[in-house]
Amino acid sequence: MEIAAVNPEMDTASTITIKGILSLLVQNVDENNGRRLISLGMGDPSAYSCFHTTRATQQAVVDSLQSEKFNGYAPTSGLPQTRRSIAEYLSRDLPYKLTSDDVFVTSGCTQAIDVALMMLARPGANILLPRPGFPIYELCSAFRNVEVRHFNLLPQQGWEVDLDAIETLADKNTVALVIVNPGNPCGNVYSYQHLKKIAETAEKLGILVIADEVYGHLAFGSKPFVPMAVFGSTVPVLTLGSLSKRWIVPGWRLGWFVTSDPSGTFKNPKAIERIKKYFDILGGPATFIQAAVPQILESTDEVFFKKTINILKQTSEICCRKIKEVPCITCTHKPEGSMAMMVRLNMELLEDISDDIDFCFKLAKEESLIILPGTAVGLKNWLRITFAVDPSFLEEGLGRLKSFCERHTLEL
Amino acid sequence: MEIAAVNPEMDTASTITIKGILSLLVQNVDENNGRRLISLGMGDPSAYSCFHTTRATQQAVVDSLQSEKFNGYAPTSGLPQTRRSIAEYLSRDLPYKLTSDDVFVTSGCTQAIDVALMMLARPGANILLPRPGFPIYELCSAFRNVEVRHFNLLPQQGWEVDLDAIETLADKNTVALVIVNPGNPCGNVYSYQHLKKIAETAEKLGILVIADEVYGHLAFGSKPFVPMAVFGSTVPVLTLGSLSKRWIVPGWRLGWFVTSDPSGTFKNPKAIERIKKYFDILGGPATFIQAAVPQILESTDEVFFKKTINILKQTSEICCRKIKEVPCITCTHKPEGSMAMMVRLNMELLEDISDDIDFCFKLAKEESLIILPGTAVGLKNWLRITFAVDPSFLEEGLGRLKSFCERHTLEL
Repeated sequence: MEIAAVNPEMDTASTITIKGILSLLVQNVDENNGRRLISLGMGDPSAYSCFHTTRATQQAVVDSLQSEKFNGYAPTSGLPQTRRSIAEYLSRDLPYKLTSDDVFVTSGCTQAIDVALMMLARPGANILLPRPGFPIYELCSAFRNVEVRHFNLLPQQGWEVDLDAIETLADKNTVALVIVNPGNPCGNVYSYQHLKKIAETAEKLGILVIADEVYGHLAFGSKPFVPMAVFGSTVPVLTLGSLSKRWIVPGWRLGWFVTSDPSGTFKNPKAIERIKKYFDILGGPATFIQAAVPQILESTDEVFFKKTINILKQTSEICCRKIKEVPCITCTHKPEGSMAMMVRLNMELLEDISDDIDFCFKLAKEESLIILPGTAVGLKNWLRITFAVDPSFLEEGLGRLKSFCERHTLEL
Repeated sequence: MEIAAVNPEMDTASTITIKGILSLLVQNVDENNGRRLISLGMGDPSAYSCFHTTRATQQAVVDSLQSEKFNGYAPTSGLPQTRRSIAEYLSRDLPYKLTSDDVFVTSGCTQAIDVALMMLARPGANILLPRPGFPIYELCSAFRNVEVRHFNLLPQQGWEVDLDAIETLADKNTVALVIVNPGNPCGNVYSYQHLKKIAETAEKLGILVIADEVYGHLAFGSKPFVPMAVFGSTVPVLTLGSLSKRWIVPGWRLGWFVTSDPSGTFKNPKAIERIKKYFDILGGPATFIQAAVPQILESTDEVFFKKTINILKQTSEICCRKIKEVPCITCTHKPEGSMAMMVRLNMELLEDISDDIDFCFKLAKEESLIILPGTAVGLKNWLRITFAVDPSFLEEGLGRLKSFCERHTLEL
């Protein structure tokens, strides 16, 4: 009986997943060293009480469940009132109005990514992905047989997109470019001007923009968050987002796939038909969670959002300050948003570490500290540090990182 | 910009969906006739108070949510305690024990179907599907480029599988055959002996069995429900199921994909790796719903299950009795399980109806009554009637069906 892996490309490094690497790192922790495990690896702050979602958000779901009206199936594209409320929520920041028809409710942003790739897949197609990036894009592309071409994000320019590279990489089979803003894994926030240039470049090349805004509004630097869909009249935009990060409920699996496209490029009936059919085979989010979305989007207290932003600002600053004390690690760009940042390992200063993966495995073993090696997001000899962590854990974790580096630094 | 449908085969009739047809039928209802809409089309009984889930089931989810412990991500294959409890639940009826590793938690049974197809897809593969059947299989196969070959279910033999056809259809590229038991759309329940023959046939042909048991335990005839996995030592079985039907919470999207395979055929590390990677791009069910599953599976009152079975028995009998009064419709086999049955249209007795689709569209318009045309499940000039409906609605609906037929019957 033959039920082995089918696509040979599925076995390559392009299909590394963050969860896969993190779980290998956790297995490498020495359980006998008596120290609590600290993870600066996953972007899931819900474990820390300082990041708990609001009571009102939770109560909206309890009320929806207890109403006993939402135990049945929802339409596969989502409940009408949920689609409408997401359209209204996103339209607040746009120069035009989205409608319910533009919105498809997904099981978290992950499923929204999968839908985008399914929609764009065709023989010979290629897609432009950022490096460093979020590996689910590579994995979805592999499952859809879409060729991946990487453009660099430029660390010396605040992780802006290398627009020249985009022009070089794109050809007639290029279907889209992906941006993640606020940035995961880099913690950057793109300016209006830079987003405008991205839109103009995509328009010139005849490709669309997939804007992963799962960290939307989580900006705490000098630049405000600007949704890519602001440029929807220049270039068709697929906006992907979710409740996960801003409301700190990643486990609720409530996301959206939105065609932000006032000029109607996506209104091609065949394209819409294909998306709708695909939704028929997807399990969307629970109906009663969907039913709570209008209440959540309309009524969440601004104080909660500000509190989250303030903690993230504080914890990102703790990171920058503590990293400065470690000579073998450099923070090239202060984070301005999201929940993670990239820092560079100065390999020439380390004596018995071969690369970022070796670094992270030894760190897990010796310090019970989990940090993601940059290789997992496409950048060798860098680290991704998640700062959506309780400040006391973060201080302790970064203290351990410092001790580890001191022990492994070359004597000069 | 080219974002049209890509796979030409996606446009064929093989990709009809039940929801798609039902929504067209609803659009055909004459809103001015002043009668309430009655649908005997969808298998979603949660709308009727006689089918409401238990308070305890609901409370388990409320408690899990309010604990604030399950707002974060679950492992992509599911929470360990959820996988374990599903393994224990299914093992109650098996001659061997399933383990947590055999279980993957999915977003409803629909996603479990998609995972099965993804797992089995490879160039040139074909799959054997029942006719009549559940069209999501055809749709998933089309999205995975798996060729579909249909075998008949035999109405005169209680909708048993035509095993001779299986042997004729299968070749070296056949990867699996699908059975739905208790049966949707036919309402049949397979005997131990028939399941054994299916297992032996599959074993002989070297193909595995996908056992869709989303209606598991919903048997009210003389034959008990026997899970296909009872024959897991004869042939590897993929068991697909969910909370949706037995607990009457289809909107919760809590399903499972289980390798029921004591001889370890699926333990091929590459196959497992591929399944796990695929789960990384899926949005599974909400973590807090998963966390409630052990409580639900262990503690639901048997009285609730019996009550559901009794109502389904009663409503299926109402169907048979009322259909007998309608000469142009024949019930060939009394339902023994699930929530739906197939009845045959005697076209020669109808005067101005061209086929089942025409019948259902006219029925919707004239009677505000929705019934699914058999064509939607692969059987022209039959109807699928869902009897998981409040008895008073059912009586009224079938009364309207009778009047409609009387008006459209040839004068002899």
